[in-house]
Amino acid sequence: MSERAAPGDCIFCRIAAGEAPCHCVHQDELTITFMDIMPASDGHLMIIPKRHYETLYEADEESLLRIMANSRRIALAMRQVLQPDGLVVRQLNGAAAGQVVFHYHMHLVPRRRGDSPPLHGRAKANPAHLADQADRIAAALQGG
Amino acid sequence: MSERAAPGDCIFCRIAAGEAPCHCVHQDELTITFMDIMPASDGHLMIIPKRHYETLYEADEESLLRIMANSRRIALAMRQVLQPDGLVVRQLNGAAAGQVVFHYHMHLVPRRRGDSPPLHGRAKANPAHLADQADRIAAALQGG
Repeated sequence: MSERAAPGDCIFCRIAAGEAPCHCVHQDELTITFMDIMPASDGHLMIIPKRHYETLYEADEESLLRIMANSRRIALAMRQVLQPDGLVVRQLNGAAAGQVVFHYHMHLVPRRRGDSPPLHGRAKANPAHLADQADRIAAALQGG
Repeated sequence: MSERAAPGDCIFCRIAAGEAPCHCVHQDELTITFMDIMPASDGHLMIIPKRHYETLYEADEESLLRIMANSRRIALAMRQVLQPDGLVVRQLNGAAAGQVVFHYHMHLVPRRRGDSPPLHGRAKANPAHLADQADRIAAALQGG
């Protein structure tokens, strides 16, 4: 565990443990999926492992495979609810790659024709809007 | 199957079938990994399923999970050989997301501190350089 992720100091560990709030879309025993509060585009969400590891290099395969299987189901639910023109899946390893939170996370970033969202959002989204999106994507995941 | 990927017309299907050349790093019955001939950064490679599907939406889970498991092993081999400062994993779905070849592919893009590689490379790399990189990453994958 790095200096950047001392026990109890990792925001994503706290979200995974239910100790910090999030706009949750889905969770299971290995992963949790929630809206990015500073979205690069409208509907941007993240899938993270509940176990702490910084990057792909240290990842355990069980969590990784669950994240990958979930990513497809969540992408389909996002498509149903948000109807984006495209979707970027992005996972950054190391500060030199743009990683900001040092707990592995996979970004799902909806794209619209003609847009060019930044790597990271620069402003906080409206919490009510995020809560509504999370609820609708969660419903699509369960319902269809 | 879309108009953009008529049978026999998909370059990645032809690579997977051994009908078009590539600088191969690894293959198994479900996937093949090879150097991007127009790299966004030095060492940029791609993992693709041998089965044809355009995007994450249509992907079969068996191929997806193999790609994910392989991505970690290949990332570790890339780190050993190329020693990048960071690594971006990127997978683009739809033209609006920047997808150019309409056969699912996961990019692994090495990053160096201070660089900012484009989404796609704009020039062909030296084939001998790519062959050398492929061989060294392949050796690291096998050797540990």
